[in-house]
Amino acid sequence: MHEFQIIKKYFSKLSKNNKSSLNLNDDVFFDKSKRLVVSVDTYVLGIHFIDFKNPELVIKKIVRSSISDLICKGVEPKYYFISGSGNNQYFSKSKLDKITKSLKEEQKKYGIFLCGGDTVLSNKLSFTITSIGFSKKIIFRNNARLGDDIYVTGNLGDSYAGLKILQKKIHTHKKLENYFKIKYYQPDLSFRLTKKLFNFANSSIDISDGLITDLEKLINKQKLSYLLNLKDIPISKNLKKLLLSKKLNKIDFVSKGDDYQILFTANTFKHRIIDKTAKSLGIKISKIGKICSTIEKSQFIDEKGKKIAIKDKGYYHNF
Amino acid sequence: MHEFQIIKKYFSKLSKNNKSSLNLNDDVFFDKSKRLVVSVDTYVLGIHFIDFKNPELVIKKIVRSSISDLICKGVEPKYYFISGSGNNQYFSKSKLDKITKSLKEEQKKYGIFLCGGDTVLSNKLSFTITSIGFSKKIIFRNNARLGDDIYVTGNLGDSYAGLKILQKKIHTHKKLENYFKIKYYQPDLSFRLTKKLFNFANSSIDISDGLITDLEKLINKQKLSYLLNLKDIPISKNLKKLLLSKKLNKIDFVSKGDDYQILFTANTFKHRIIDKTAKSLGIKISKIGKICSTIEKSQFIDEKGKKIAIKDKGYYHNF
Repeated sequence: MHEFQIIKKYFSKLSKNNKSSLNLNDDVFFDKSKRLVVSVDTYVLGIHFIDFKNPELVIKKIVRSSISDLICKGVEPKYYFISGSGNNQYFSKSKLDKITKSLKEEQKKYGIFLCGGDTVLSNKLSFTITSIGFSKKIIFRNNARLGDDIYVTGNLGDSYAGLKILQKKIHTHKKLENYFKIKYYQPDLSFRLTKKLFNFANSSIDISDGLITDLEKLINKQKLSYLLNLKDIPISKNLKKLLLSKKLNKIDFVSKGDDYQILFTANTFKHRIIDKTAKSLGIKISKIGKICSTIEKSQFIDEKGKKIAIKDKGYYHNF
Repeated sequence: MHEFQIIKKYFSKLSKNNKSSLNLNDDVFFDKSKRLVVSVDTYVLGIHFIDFKNPELVIKKIVRSSISDLICKGVEPKYYFISGSGNNQYFSKSKLDKITKSLKEEQKKYGIFLCGGDTVLSNKLSFTITSIGFSKKIIFRNNARLGDDIYVTGNLGDSYAGLKILQKKIHTHKKLENYFKIKYYQPDLSFRLTKKLFNFANSSIDISDGLITDLEKLINKQKLSYLLNLKDIPISKNLKKLLLSKKLNKIDFVSKGDDYQILFTANTFKHRIIDKTAKSLGIKISKIGKICSTIEKSQFIDEKGKKIAIKDKGYYHNF
């Protein structure tokens, strides 16, 4: 059973009496009266990060992954807590120094503060990060409107290319390899867009599990379908280069997850304000599809105008 | 290095700019302006619970252990988040049913709500619980006053007897064994005392690591010592029976931790109101010692009036 299926099936009964919890159907918990937004995520070695040779990089990835849950909802993260399970091998003096230095950099970059946590002995390395922000409102899932345009920030696929390079399944020249590794460990969060999202987004989610998986989560309880155009899905110049030189398919990279870009839907007439916001902030925002009615089936159209079978929906953290 | 030493040494630098975090010197995080209180704890199989044969009991123990951090500070817990790492062996349908039922019971008992969490695949079972409450004020550590009396709620040592019975290191008759096992898995939290603590406590902590360890944490930055009287440390009738029949020493049981009783200090003139509160709530509160100046060394006096060497300060979750 996949992670959110477990949560949904068993734990959703427990939160029924509590209106704030969104019945565990969103990535964040929101208490409107307290203006409190909370996200809790666990990251396990071998599942969410492939090794711990570079603790300074792993720690950046997991902190960004955690605060991304808040950012994509229009909420600036303020506090975070880290609970780490591991042994001396993972928490040696030199590794702890690197972790601390990294956390300091992330704190400065995103205006967040470490507020506590726990460290326990375990032969299996894992981290749980609790991120907290304060907001009067959030942008929900399950709130897309028929006819909404689908947008995504930044580029997709770089992180997956980085993973494949780290796994030594793709080889290219050092400079390009480094570019993708950095994108895998230090995904670009569209942090400056956070508060602006309220100006146009009807619904939003961050892309952690993969474009299709997260899009389906976004609309999961709604009687809606989607139309996505592969040609409009933004990729970096470097990924274009890599795909071309290795004869790889774009589709195999853009829906694999770990991008931590914001996927949102907005009414068509918001197009101008979205473009303006993107320009003024220097953030790339691309229109990649449309929300349709369920009379049509969801469709993914390739660059030649042909339908792509939606089978590989992303990954559920078990690569 | 022990858990709180790791946190202290490396992570305390990161929270320096943030007044609310108490420099990670307390068990909870408190943001006065937001009235927010947060506690994060991780529980690992083989360290914090000995097996997962009875998931319905383990889950009660770890939820109580987590909310106990708030309760001892005068804060009623409201929300909790569970992040579980494990595999199908641990999260089978029947185990999940038991866990859900248990959580429901705890929710009703303590007025708390499950608000989210995460479940991830791992061959090592662990849980991280984030507990959240709201309060204008909390009772801090490092705030004991010279001459304060030292108090503890409930009984100590039952949980440790339960652990030894579960580990098959102590054998007695079934009824008594069951009593201690229940105390190990379902410690009595002095929940009804929570808000009353503000009427008398100068400083407080819950006993999780052990009476002496937690008392030393309570006064850790203060130039103070303590005097404890073994004869005044409250134990249950059942523990008295067990100690007598097995010729075991009280001292070996009362400072081992996992009691989740509240240890607090109060001015001597608060004695009457403490007694009155205890009576009206039906909660046992015992005066067990005194806060002294550092001119004297900390002392633990046995039942014959002799000094006990303070060597076994409790345990650091590595039994």
